[in-house]
Amino acid sequence: MADRPPLVLQPPTPETARNIANTLRFLAADQVQKANSGHPGMPMGSAEIATVLMTKHLRIDPKDDKWPGRDRFILSAGHASALLYGMLHLQGFLTLEDLHGFRQLGTRTPGHPEVGETPGVEASTGPLGAGFAMAVGMAAAERMTAELFNTPKFDIIDHHTYVLTGDGCQQEGAVYEAASLAGTLGLGRLIVIYDRNQITIEGSTSLAFTEDVAKRYEAMNWHVQTVDGQDMDAVDAALVAAKEEKLRPSIIIANTTIGRGAPKKAGKASVHGEPLGAEELASAKEAMNWPAESFYVPKDVADYFDVRRGEWMAMRQEWNDMFAAYDKKHHATARELQRVLAGELPKQWKNSLPEFPADKAVATRAAGGTVMNGLGAVIPELIGGAADLSPSTKTEIKSGANPEYIARGAFLGRNIHFGVREHAMGWFTNGVALHGGFIPYSSTFMVFHDYMRPAVRLAALMKLRNIFVYTHDSIMVGEDGPTHEPVETLAALRTIPGLNVWRPADANETAFAWQAMIERKDGPSAICLSRQNLPVFDRTKYAGARETLKGMYILDTDTEKSPEILIIASGSDVQLAVGVAEGLRKAGKAVRVVSAPCLEVFKTQAEGYRKKVLPKRLRKRLVIESGVVQGWEGVLGDSGIFAGMAGFGLSGKAEMVADHFGLTVPKILERVNREGW
Amino acid sequence: MADRPPLVLQPPTPETARNIANTLRFLAADQVQKANSGHPGMPMGSAEIATVLMTKHLRIDPKDDKWPGRDRFILSAGHASALLYGMLHLQGFLTLEDLHGFRQLGTRTPGHPEVGETPGVEASTGPLGAGFAMAVGMAAAERMTAELFNTPKFDIIDHHTYVLTGDGCQQEGAVYEAASLAGTLGLGRLIVIYDRNQITIEGSTSLAFTEDVAKRYEAMNWHVQTVDGQDMDAVDAALVAAKEEKLRPSIIIANTTIGRGAPKKAGKASVHGEPLGAEELASAKEAMNWPAESFYVPKDVADYFDVRRGEWMAMRQEWNDMFAAYDKKHHATARELQRVLAGELPKQWKNSLPEFPADKAVATRAAGGTVMNGLGAVIPELIGGAADLSPSTKTEIKSGANPEYIARGAFLGRNIHFGVREHAMGWFTNGVALHGGFIPYSSTFMVFHDYMRPAVRLAALMKLRNIFVYTHDSIMVGEDGPTHEPVETLAALRTIPGLNVWRPADANETAFAWQAMIERKDGPSAICLSRQNLPVFDRTKYAGARETLKGMYILDTDTEKSPEILIIASGSDVQLAVGVAEGLRKAGKAVRVVSAPCLEVFKTQAEGYRKKVLPKRLRKRLVIESGVVQGWEGVLGDSGIFAGMAGFGLSGKAEMVADHFGLTVPKILERVNREGW
Repeated sequence: MADRPPLVLQPPTPETARNIANTLRFLAADQVQKANSGHPGMPMGSAEIATVLMTKHLRIDPKDDKWPGRDRFILSAGHASALLYGMLHLQGFLTLEDLHGFRQLGTRTPGHPEVGETPGVEASTGPLGAGFAMAVGMAAAERMTAELFNTPKFDIIDHHTYVLTGDGCQQEGAVYEAASLAGTLGLGRLIVIYDRNQITIEGSTSLAFTEDVAKRYEAMNWHVQTVDGQDMDAVDAALVAAKEEKLRPSIIIANTTIGRGAPKKAGKASVHGEPLGAEELASAKEAMNWPAESFYVPKDVADYFDVRRGEWMAMRQEWNDMFAAYDKKHHATARELQRVLAGELPKQWKNSLPEFPADKAVATRAAGGTVMNGLGAVIPELIGGAADLSPSTKTEIKSGANPEYIARGAFLGRNIHFGVREHAMGWFTNGVALHGGFIPYSSTFMVFHDYMRPAVRLAALMKLRNIFVYTHDSIMVGEDGPTHEPVETLAALRTIPGLNVWRPADANETAFAWQAMIERKDGPSAICLSRQNLPVFDRTKYAGARETLKGMYILDTDTEKSPEILIIASGSDVQLAVGVAEGLRKAGKAVRVVSAPCLEVFKTQAEGYRKKVLPKRLRKRLVIESGVVQGWEGVLGDSGIFAGMAGFGLSGKAEMVADHFGLTVPKILERVNREGW
Repeated sequence: MADRPPLVLQPPTPETARNIANTLRFLAADQVQKANSGHPGMPMGSAEIATVLMTKHLRIDPKDDKWPGRDRFILSAGHASALLYGMLHLQGFLTLEDLHGFRQLGTRTPGHPEVGETPGVEASTGPLGAGFAMAVGMAAAERMTAELFNTPKFDIIDHHTYVLTGDGCQQEGAVYEAASLAGTLGLGRLIVIYDRNQITIEGSTSLAFTEDVAKRYEAMNWHVQTVDGQDMDAVDAALVAAKEEKLRPSIIIANTTIGRGAPKKAGKASVHGEPLGAEELASAKEAMNWPAESFYVPKDVADYFDVRRGEWMAMRQEWNDMFAAYDKKHHATARELQRVLAGELPKQWKNSLPEFPADKAVATRAAGGTVMNGLGAVIPELIGGAADLSPSTKTEIKSGANPEYIARGAFLGRNIHFGVREHAMGWFTNGVALHGGFIPYSSTFMVFHDYMRPAVRLAALMKLRNIFVYTHDSIMVGEDGPTHEPVETLAALRTIPGLNVWRPADANETAFAWQAMIERKDGPSAICLSRQNLPVFDRTKYAGARETLKGMYILDTDTEKSPEILIIASGSDVQLAVGVAEGLRKAGKAVRVVSAPCLEVFKTQAEGYRKKVLPKRLRKRLVIESGVVQGWEGVLGDSGIFAGMAGFGLSGKAEMVADHFGLTVPKILERVNREGW
């Protein structure tokens, strides 16, 4: 891989550099003051860092915030959004008017950075550690894309991922997990600047955070430098050195003073998360020799960025020219790169979805593995891994292009060993989705969704195409016992707005659930799969498995015109539903069974279809799901019966555990009979 | 504090020590083989470690598994339960028959260790990292109890907390967080043995975990030793050195071979989580010169532990004698220690619950702080802290005995700086509750419950008295925006079996919610509190606040005998409910308002009461809660209206955000009118 020629970015004069820093400092303080809400402390302390980054390193272009060759800058300390918005203003993404609207409803400058809401924002951050951990995924995606698409002559993908993080992020376990993984993978183009002001909300970090951070990062195979974060030359030198280091991720520990410039509050916790107040703000400006005017941008600063925007545009033009030459020489590859970056699927990918015969039972986790591998063979951008559970979750890609694991210095691969790091895995795959070029998935036991829940929430908020594979989805885990048996996890997943939660009933529903997850471009999906074998429905006798795509459907399309009883179930529990229906029919009842692989998708169906599946008049409704009732009560209505769990599970053979909790055909029939249906 | 005289525990002969190790090794392999399920690998590799610990260090007594002076041993690698059960058998807690029942329904030997199900088990473990992180809380609780109750002559509390952890735990972020906190606090009596066999499920740890663990722990202020984990003398020497280190927690990195003894599988991932198979098991016994007999315990081993049980009993007797002398000399203090260890509350503690006047508005988070401080003044065992948010969550204890923060070498205090470590905080407080002597609480913003959810789940499973304080409980967070606005968190909390979730409507409901949480001995509680000010209901006009204790109650006890419309709400939304009721009454409707501070507690009320509050005939039900609908549909029934959230929130002034989502009195009235009620 050839190195790109050095950037030709006109550096500012020392005076202009100081002015840029102060512009950022006071634009931030002014935003917070005007909104009467927000965090001035970190922006004021890290304004010099931001200045160096913007003026000497960052390759972006405000004319195209989706430019694939752009550097990524992630503000992991999302509460310092006022700094980011100041940067985006100088860069040309935001107007001064946008900054006036800081933290107000309907503006492009929300309280914390939100991707999609503000041009130039690469990730939604604020929950501490999120940005750092997602950046690790972005940096890995950069290397994976580069390995796939660069050629000796064309470094189409060779950007850096910069992160600005603070003392809060560094205490989060997710950051440790992600950092350890980044060190293992040797993500040399990941450059973290740790704004170390040693103040958090409760006071000095010495109260709760006394470790030697530099040593800890060294232990994790990082390139570590410590600098005075207010010395712009020192920060620049450290960034240069960080870029020279190719095999290890870099962290620059930049010591700063929180609220720098505020005469009374600098260095204190009180400047962290509250407006300075008019008086202190005025004093700060005076102390820094800065005009009192609000939202002030000096002419030399404005002029500098006018020139800079031209340079940035030229830089992108240079990349476009390179891409055109690349396209000429490697046409198919260039098209393929454009396809994956656009998130479009290859033609006829659906042909690769397997169809499972009805003659043998298969666990949906195993079916999932087969489906994934079918898809993986034709969708090379499908990549992912497990939190050290792939032999159990069956999520290794063994077919198609590059079915290897990525590793340090070897990024041509589809599989990732995430280690026992569920939380980092969730953030990492979010980062991959944000970077573009891949459809990421990740997997673990369903009960351990809890470990990565913050990342799943943000995937939904950011509307990312990210797929979460959760296996061992009920008390049928059996011997491992209640610590490993999800009973509330399905319900908890379904509470997350915008997350589609699939729980297929058999192998063929699994295939269509995967189809739906792959097709969905505007949000994440989770799929909940069985540990145990499940019979495959004979689709000549039952409704076609394609009905899965509707979220809920009438499974047994027998001749019953007017069923008296409706049985609705998901996943492995559909087997119980069919057994109970059989029992009731023997007793002369007219019964209909509905399979419910995805409640969220069902809710998006036309009203007519929904009424057909769940006719209003049909009030004898039996819902079977081996989890808690939340999320089902709306379907149950006032006179339904719920066969599920009311508490945690137990350790024992799965069938005995199910029997203990009444989740067998005879015991459910007994309950129905008791009801007098 | 005087050092206790050295233990007089007869060490085994080298031959018996070897036999003990092999007994543990093969009892584990036999259990897994018989159950045809479980994890033989780690037990076989760490049998020597367990032998040294049991024979030379552990102070316990199987005659009294609640003895306060006992050492705590926590198997953080809970999947190695077969090792623990072997240890508990030799110690005298479990019979061989118990071991035969490994992983079967209804036995005392479930798949993963479960506290309360098995004598001698100190914590439920299995979810990786949980045991380690809880042990940090236990070790802190030991020091805090010691500081409170020991006297120069009486070291009543001076036990050690031992943890056996593996490669999986070490990769978890929660373990990093807890370890960093333990290093900051200098928990010298915490001794972690890290069974480093370098194998996890996907293979060698070199695939995903390449850091220098020793260096990382040194960076976190730990005392670090590395030994051959199969050399019993080396392990013993390291344990002796670890005990000598008083100011830093110790980690002993013990290199072992997973599945030691299994000729074909030792050192391989395949021995981690599956039975050896009859053939390999037989070969292993042969290779280790061990009888083929299943569940074999040699006579010298049995004899050794017969003697040892006598020594343990004598040891506890010695402690009892010391306690008797202590009781004589410091009677009141001794009684107090017994009281807190029994989890009994001081007399008349309820008198300290404040009553809030109706004349001014107060945020329930602020009211919570006042209530906590009232309680804290008379309940000295109430201790806790925040994940670096106490100025916002208002959870600092400023009154009563020792209202300081604990710190390295200074454990006389009630408050803890947890740092930005939500996950470790959850586990830590679980550990404190498991240790006994305290009622722990912890706090953060409600949306960050997700970061600590695994710990909350296990608190519920373990039935711990642990209190989770979550503030900023809705979109009324306002400016901080959707990353900080819980919309699904209430619903997700309510899915956890056994967790009581409180969301008080005003300051006085907050007081009674705290009363209920403190009184509850058999499970955890969460309380969700408002950021914004809320009027305090004038209880001369509304039902008494004591009704809060029923979970739901009729708030407005006006003269309406037959309401047509029922409005049910929780927390800040009760204000909306009252406003809507007023509007409807003006339009001539008969309306009843129900406040619903805790759905779980309401469900435990007598049926008669429940029917009175939610009369079956009353189907026009309006539920208002600024969260998602899950959990409410059962109350809503087939014809209710839900005024709440269907997606994530927005950044802006709280009132404008609420208006945007239709959560204002006029907008809800409009909806009700549209319904034709």
